[in-house]
Amino acid sequence: MARSSLKDCTGLHVVAQTPFHADGALDLDSIDTLSAFYYGHGARGLTILGVSGEQAKLTADEAVQVASRFIQVADGHRIIVGVSSASLAQLVTVARDAMTEGADAVMICPPRGIQTDEDLMRYFDAVFARIEDTPTVLQDFPVHSGVRMSPPLMRRLVDAFPQIGVIKEEDLPSVTKITRLRDELGHRVRILTGNNGLYLPQELARGADGPMAGFSFPEMLSGVHDLFAAGDPSAAHDLFDRHLPLLRYEAQGEWGIAIRKEVMRQRGALNCSAMRMPGPVLSALDKREIATMIDRMTTDFHFDPGSAD
Amino acid sequence: MARSSLKDCTGLHVVAQTPFHADGALDLDSIDTLSAFYYGHGARGLTILGVSGEQAKLTADEAVQVASRFIQVADGHRIIVGVSSASLAQLVTVARDAMTEGADAVMICPPRGIQTDEDLMRYFDAVFARIEDTPTVLQDFPVHSGVRMSPPLMRRLVDAFPQIGVIKEEDLPSVTKITRLRDELGHRVRILTGNNGLYLPQELARGADGPMAGFSFPEMLSGVHDLFAAGDPSAAHDLFDRHLPLLRYEAQGEWGIAIRKEVMRQRGALNCSAMRMPGPVLSALDKREIATMIDRMTTDFHFDPGSAD
Amino acid sequence: MARSSLKDCTGLHVVAQTPFHADGALDLDSIDTLSAFYYGHGARGLTILGVSGEQAKLTADEAVQVASRFIQVADGHRIIVGVSSASLAQLVTVARDAMTEGADAVMICPPRGIQTDEDLMRYFDAVFARIEDTPTVLQDFPVHSGVRMSPPLMRRLVDAFPQIGVIKEEDLPSVTKITRLRDELGHRVRILTGNNGLYLPQELARGADGPMAGFSFPEMLSGVHDLFAAGDPSAAHDLFDRHLPLLRYEAQGEWGIAIRKEVMRQRGALNCSAMRMPGPVLSALDKREIATMIDRMTTDFHFDPGSAD
Amino acid sequence: MARSSLKDCTGLHVVAQTPFHADGALDLDSIDTLSAFYYGHGARGLTILGVSGEQAKLTADEAVQVASRFIQVADGHRIIVGVSSASLAQLVTVARDAMTEGADAVMICPPRGIQTDEDLMRYFDAVFARIEDTPTVLQDFPVHSGVRMSPPLMRRLVDAFPQIGVIKEEDLPSVTKITRLRDELGHRVRILTGNNGLYLPQELARGADGPMAGFSFPEMLSGVHDLFAAGDPSAAHDLFDRHLPLLRYEAQGEWGIAIRKEVMRQRGALNCSAMRMPGPVLSALDKREIATMIDRMTTDFHFDPGSAD
Repeated sequence: MARSSLKDCTGLHVVAQTPFHADGALDLDSIDTLSAFYYGHGARGLTILGVSGEQAKLTADEAVQVASRFIQVADGHRIIVGVSSASLAQLVTVARDAMTEGADAVMICPPRGIQTDEDLMRYFDAVFARIEDTPTVLQDFPVHSGVRMSPPLMRRLVDAFPQIGVIKEEDLPSVTKITRLRDELGHRVRILTGNNGLYLPQELARGADGPMAGFSFPEMLSGVHDLFAAGDPSAAHDLFDRHLPLLRYEAQGEWGIAIRKEVMRQRGALNCSAMRMPGPVLSALDKREIATMIDRMTTDFHFDPGSAD
Repeated sequence: MARSSLKDCTGLHVVAQTPFHADGALDLDSIDTLSAFYYGHGARGLTILGVSGEQAKLTADEAVQVASRFIQVADGHRIIVGVSSASLAQLVTVARDAMTEGADAVMICPPRGIQTDEDLMRYFDAVFARIEDTPTVLQDFPVHSGVRMSPPLMRRLVDAFPQIGVIKEEDLPSVTKITRLRDELGHRVRILTGNNGLYLPQELARGADGPMAGFSFPEMLSGVHDLFAAGDPSAAHDLFDRHLPLLRYEAQGEWGIAIRKEVMRQRGALNCSAMRMPGPVLSALDKREIATMIDRMTTDFHFDPGSAD
Repeated sequence: MARSSLKDCTGLHVVAQTPFHADGALDLDSIDTLSAFYYGHGARGLTILGVSGEQAKLTADEAVQVASRFIQVADGHRIIVGVSSASLAQLVTVARDAMTEGADAVMICPPRGIQTDEDLMRYFDAVFARIEDTPTVLQDFPVHSGVRMSPPLMRRLVDAFPQIGVIKEEDLPSVTKITRLRDELGHRVRILTGNNGLYLPQELARGADGPMAGFSFPEMLSGVHDLFAAGDPSAAHDLFDRHLPLLRYEAQGEWGIAIRKEVMRQRGALNCSAMRMPGPVLSALDKREIATMIDRMTTDFHFDPGSAD
Repeated sequence: MARSSLKDCTGLHVVAQTPFHADGALDLDSIDTLSAFYYGHGARGLTILGVSGEQAKLTADEAVQVASRFIQVADGHRIIVGVSSASLAQLVTVARDAMTEGADAVMICPPRGIQTDEDLMRYFDAVFARIEDTPTVLQDFPVHSGVRMSPPLMRRLVDAFPQIGVIKEEDLPSVTKITRLRDELGHRVRILTGNNGLYLPQELARGADGPMAGFSFPEMLSGVHDLFAAGDPSAAHDLFDRHLPLLRYEAQGEWGIAIRKEVMRQRGALNCSAMRMPGPVLSALDKREIATMIDRMTTDFHFDPGSAD
């Protein structure tokens, strides 16, 4: 039942930024504008409070406030709430509060310290004993978590826990992992892909159901998905390649998030590009570098009117 | 000013357990009994919500509830509250709430991910800009945090931040680190030692001001300190050595905490030895092993009536 | 003196692959063809036995054999030998043997386990006491080594050890690190950049002296450098962007190396694309994916005859 | 066949130190004296080139020289050679050379970077395809290697690879792991225990076959094993407890090895206590601290003539 509620979870699900004021205070009002920006550029849903949503810098109370506001303005779109935490109690508290507020699902990445397949099964036993039939996205992100899951182990998890309806796949090389997961799992679960969308065309060709990533031009992510779905991979590749210089520039960890927020501010999606401290601060030189890249990308479009964009 | 408030922070400060019911719920009432046990066995203060206090399994709200209760029954003893967190916002929130409730100081271990000396200075700039003149214990525990601090760097921290009145030293070998810290710092700050007290006599001989550790027989920790202070290191060593078989058995990470809570339950200090899930559960065999060890330790005392204990 | 011998170390220095036969045996003969390929596509020198040269899978004897062969066919190009090792004795042995064979310099990345600035200074004291005035490339690659070096610390190293003539900079974001290193160091040392060349145009604009990276189309790396040097950054960006889809595909760690070797085999630069075990093996699907990418990249060139390539 | 050759691998197998001259050169001659010391204090065999044998500081050639000398003077005792390496080629080379020289078995700890159970099986497939029927000790030492193995996975390894005749168990808590391994494996393989012998009496009570550890008083390790085997656990505990202050002092990682070598020098087992650089150097204060500890330990013996020692 839980899994079935995520069976149509395909297409672009943006990993949303969290808006802050320049002083680091939450800017809840900007969540409305930001949501509109995402939905206006092709997002079918949002994943909020993910790693690039600066989740680790919030208190549990703040996390629930943010979730609540995104849910209020979801306007029919799916809201998935990142609840990963070293503290199982905090994970459970935030998951329950978010579901009570009206979230559609939670996303969980197993915490640092889990080592063996046995440890992992035991961890999710403990998790699902507490959050019960909450629909769940399993995040496979070993570079961040230190926890690696083999495809057979992921099949064990999916078999044991029908709550898991989606896998967010970002173990590198994601292309081969997706191929192996489809071999192990068929289409019992949806597979959305992260890693900033850096391998999206190849991932879609391997059987992914869409991107779950952030990018300051989300229309590229949704466009690539839709062109692939429409049977035009060549146009999808063209669209992707044109954005790739900026995309790989944003794919630089926490600093890349600062870049992304600045581009989004320039596009009117955010009032303020500040990240909460401690975090990177862009210099004037950094901002000029961004401007150059956007300029090149936009100018190219003028010279290529046949673009799928 | 902040530092001076910790200038008499010497002697045993127990890293307190957090009491839970068998179902994992907080057992706030047991904090009263537990506090009495610690103070009755020589503790001059407590450090609550440390690593072995299962801090990472609590929500921020629960952390404040626990702190509040320990403070209510402190009865003139010093209460230091562990506030380390990957989230600076959560650190600040818990620190402020704890100080408002009446805590004497907070303890901070820099979070995983800090790499260079520069990063560390910047981190504490951000911390102290927010918690201002809160008296602070700096925890040097690289095996846990992944952050290593050289003695010259620790001097820079102490020079820059007068809030730091105590260093909790548990970088191994702690004995040589204490010698080097005394060379760098003189006696500007207090040095208390952790690592379950496993090197306590040598650490005191090197200039440590006392233990900040947990052990199911806290009277050993206070006794060793007091005998050293009274100029009788030989008796201190005798007392220490007699408890060493159990002490090193408890010094086994999270599993050792389960052992400690069970011994403390048998001694009447805790109503229930449960750790919050996910955590180790002792088998019948484990418990028999404990019983054997306690029995040997206690029996030895009969044959050694001249003990300082 | 040592540093001055590297003062003209600019332009493309390819991080060379190591050729193996299908059974994993060294293919020393192929080093000749491979070297010719690199030099024919703009390399001014080679860095051999780097991470992507599968250095960690060789014995010390094999390392010296590989170095010796590359040096024999260097034909006036600079040969830098990667000698990083957890074993200082092995580092010193390989460094001495390589220099005796005629290498121009060695490259050293500090080993996992170094934590404080003090530790690092002590490590290089020990290294340079043994390899004396060997010209040295300092590799700053914390994602791989776990050792982070701040710009002030790198200045201390450069001040203390005149052997260091080049920094291979691949700490992310490399663009800001290069800006900070130029502020700290001026142009006392050369800065070459790694990370598979993924940020090359921006790095050159920030003051890098060239790429030290591997890519199956090394003519792009040298071309981008030369166009920048010739004052035509726009053409440099065009050339870079056209190769970016394949470049970011190769930038996937060890699996990316397998991709690179396969592309190089298709281009005639290698007889055999095998990596030594244990390592990734490409499937038929993986190879078709590569073919598609090369085809798209090459076809684009036909439609863009004004390319700088 | 391979496994059966290790079926009588019980009792003390000392993890041997490697002797160096003060300048860091190998002191091969001292291997003879050192071996005599170990065999004279109850060792049935030696494990050479382990972590505490400073294996990581040797070149492959030096490793074979050391192995060869220990084998020449083995005098009927079992010699197990540590061959763990990040380089599979180096592991295989050293293993083959050591077996050719006459070693009885090799010891392998899986290298850092192995994450899933699948990865581990594949790694040992590659290893045993190369070293074939070499009798092997599997080292389970996750604190050092970063690789955790669950008991069911270890059963899979033992089932798949009959070369594995001994498990060196040092995953904490070792006591519960031994109990679980005996449940999974029965007595198909021998289990020897490491961690400096710090939990030896409890490990023997749980079914371990003996210690594989270093300690400057190896007669304690053999004595505790023999008293347990003779059905006198109480005397075994007494003997153990008396040495515990020094034992836990030596159990401090690399610094503890420096301590151990100094104590062994004082006992005449080593001519020189130097560790190869980079490594810790003891101060005069450190040495006085050791002297005090030895003095207390030895004096106690005088007052306890009924000891089993």
